[in-house]
Amino acid sequence: MRMPLEGVRILDLSAIIAGPYSTLLLADLGAEVIKIEKPGTGDGARGMPPHYVEGESAYFIAYNRNKKSLVLNLTKPQGKKAFLDLVKISDVVVNNYRPGVIEKLGLHYEALRELNPRIICCSITGYGSTGPFKDRPAFDICVQARGGIMSFTGEPGRPPVRQGVPMGDLGGGIFAAHGILAALYQREKTGRGQKIDISMLDCQIAMLSYRGQYYLSGGEIAQPLGTGHASVHPSRSFQTKTFEIVLDCNLQRIFDEFCALAGVPEMAKDPRFSSRENRFTHQKALYEKLEALFLTRTGEEWLALMDARIPIAPINTVDKALTDPQVLSRNMVPEVDCGAGKTLKIIGNPIKMSEIEKEKFTPAPRLDQDGDQLLRELLHYRDEEIKAAR
Amino acid sequence: MRMPLEGVRILDLSAIIAGPYSTLLLADLGAEVIKIEKPGTGDGARGMPPHYVEGESAYFIAYNRNKKSLVLNLTKPQGKKAFLDLVKISDVVVNNYRPGVIEKLGLHYEALRELNPRIICCSITGYGSTGPFKDRPAFDICVQARGGIMSFTGEPGRPPVRQGVPMGDLGGGIFAAHGILAALYQREKTGRGQKIDISMLDCQIAMLSYRGQYYLSGGEIAQPLGTGHASVHPSRSFQTKTFEIVLDCNLQRIFDEFCALAGVPEMAKDPRFSSRENRFTHQKALYEKLEALFLTRTGEEWLALMDARIPIAPINTVDKALTDPQVLSRNMVPEVDCGAGKTLKIIGNPIKMSEIEKEKFTPAPRLDQDGDQLLRELLHYRDEEIKAAR
Repeated sequence: MRMPLEGVRILDLSAIIAGPYSTLLLADLGAEVIKIEKPGTGDGARGMPPHYVEGESAYFIAYNRNKKSLVLNLTKPQGKKAFLDLVKISDVVVNNYRPGVIEKLGLHYEALRELNPRIICCSITGYGSTGPFKDRPAFDICVQARGGIMSFTGEPGRPPVRQGVPMGDLGGGIFAAHGILAALYQREKTGRGQKIDISMLDCQIAMLSYRGQYYLSGGEIAQPLGTGHASVHPSRSFQTKTFEIVLDCNLQRIFDEFCALAGVPEMAKDPRFSSRENRFTHQKALYEKLEALFLTRTGEEWLALMDARIPIAPINTVDKALTDPQVLSRNMVPEVDCGAGKTLKIIGNPIKMSEIEKEKFTPAPRLDQDGDQLLRELLHYRDEEIKAAR
Repeated sequence: MRMPLEGVRILDLSAIIAGPYSTLLLADLGAEVIKIEKPGTGDGARGMPPHYVEGESAYFIAYNRNKKSLVLNLTKPQGKKAFLDLVKISDVVVNNYRPGVIEKLGLHYEALRELNPRIICCSITGYGSTGPFKDRPAFDICVQARGGIMSFTGEPGRPPVRQGVPMGDLGGGIFAAHGILAALYQREKTGRGQKIDISMLDCQIAMLSYRGQYYLSGGEIAQPLGTGHASVHPSRSFQTKTFEIVLDCNLQRIFDEFCALAGVPEMAKDPRFSSRENRFTHQKALYEKLEALFLTRTGEEWLALMDARIPIAPINTVDKALTDPQVLSRNMVPEVDCGAGKTLKIIGNPIKMSEIEKEKFTPAPRLDQDGDQLLRELLHYRDEEIKAAR
């Protein structure tokens, strides 16, 4: 039984979120990911407050399952030599250093391909390696703000908010993994590696999708809509007798069925609500009717009445989401063995492929956990060389 | 010059966002994506109000650049035969039908692999093809709500909001594309295709990342934080004399440099703010000082003072984001030729690969734009067979 990316070795120079998330996605599918960490603290995420498990931060744990850790001092000749020796027998190098650092270390694509023409190098930066902002630093919040999405996330008429998960970083990581997979596939045809240049800001622009196109084609400047939608009605949250629920009935077939199930069949026949164009035009009247309707039953009653047939859901807090029966049934909260009889619950892999017979998860590595073994087994280093590489 | 995915043919049965976004990402990298659309209306996104360009919705335009369109009536034997003939010469089939439909059409993986053992079939559904909710319908808002992210997106103490872009759908599309790329790579080794089963809810769970792990390892139930952060301080928006800007100075080196540039070097020496652990503990005092500080200058002044060295950014509305000089310099808003001397601005490809010498963009296809040509050239159908397939 092979995993889809078995045999792919990735040298991961990255830290915090964007880079580690990209290699996490590849590790889940079977790539061998070796985190190359700096002596002392390693990945800066290891010390992120406030939650720790056996001295390792939950923040770090979230992005580093299924990986190995090797400490190398890349500013010293012996450490750099070990890295370059690894490049010769690896497939991919990922970094999310600030702009210019990978060149200063001499570990950029143009240097590495001399050692291994099949190597694929991916860098993830805030703004990319070209353009007027290429030397500027940026973190998640900067690209969420500069890229536009923050400006229209929030309640109407109130200040913008950040997306609750770090989509600036995650977007960079996701599209980096995407480029790496495409480059691996292309290498099967050409025999050559290549360089991939991911800008977290570009990724935000790519995710603007229809709200960006509404500006480009319609001149509409996206505004915050709370839980609502710019085109689809009804699609929003509603207060019930007990808790808020969300509903989306844009398809006519579903809107008709919703009205029947809710005991308001006359609503489906109302000409103001008889097509998505008409509901768009009369959205105010539509929401007034629905707000009153949803207050007539509890959230539990609405869900029990609807959830087999209508796109409806509770707004789960994270404890409820991570104990949801559907989520658990899909192995999205696996429990991993940490040794010494201890286990840890982590987040699972969302890409379910039939050639993966059984998903495998190991906890995030301790700093340098695999260092000696990797240098010995992969590079046949002797003890003194292993020591010098740190 | 080949594109990374040149030679990969994808039959795309999907509509609206999740499926089309997955094939969009693959089309941008050179895959031949053939949208198989139903007679009459085609992809339901074509009619989405309120913005249209030559009768095609901006919503549809946003998700269908670089694709071809072919109308087939899959409920009729001749239409189904044409589809199955295409399966024999294709690599990937994508659908985001509601649960059970692909089986009812007889176009599920187990049927198609009999015709082509190399075929890769990917289905995207709200909750996946297994588990207690597998038959339930769900759209973007449902998985944003059920998956937890909505509950902690918003202002502290106020109702939750939806992320401004449809991350429920986009997440499904992104991870579907990811699985397809991994399956293409694995097929190079095994010669076999496989089935990929993407649940949009699973994808939300995968993006919970550290905010999910904070619950699993620390029992913390994520709360909405406005533009703030659960661990990183300062990381937030601030009102200036003119407009709001965002700032992230969690790294000690950057915090020190920020204080020096801002003319408050004593702040970096304050023991309450001298490490990220200390700033976490004293975040209230930190933000009080920074709020007062940012009000002393205009947004323009802060940006001019800081943006070469410090992760800082304006909160751009979508018009500003899509005319940002960095965004334009990266070809993220290409102008495409629509024929008859007309052009259209669209969103570009965020995956910049060195083997792509020149990015290529074509506008979203008119319904059945490529139908006759595809059936004639790929399947050598005669006119009467072409007519019967519709």
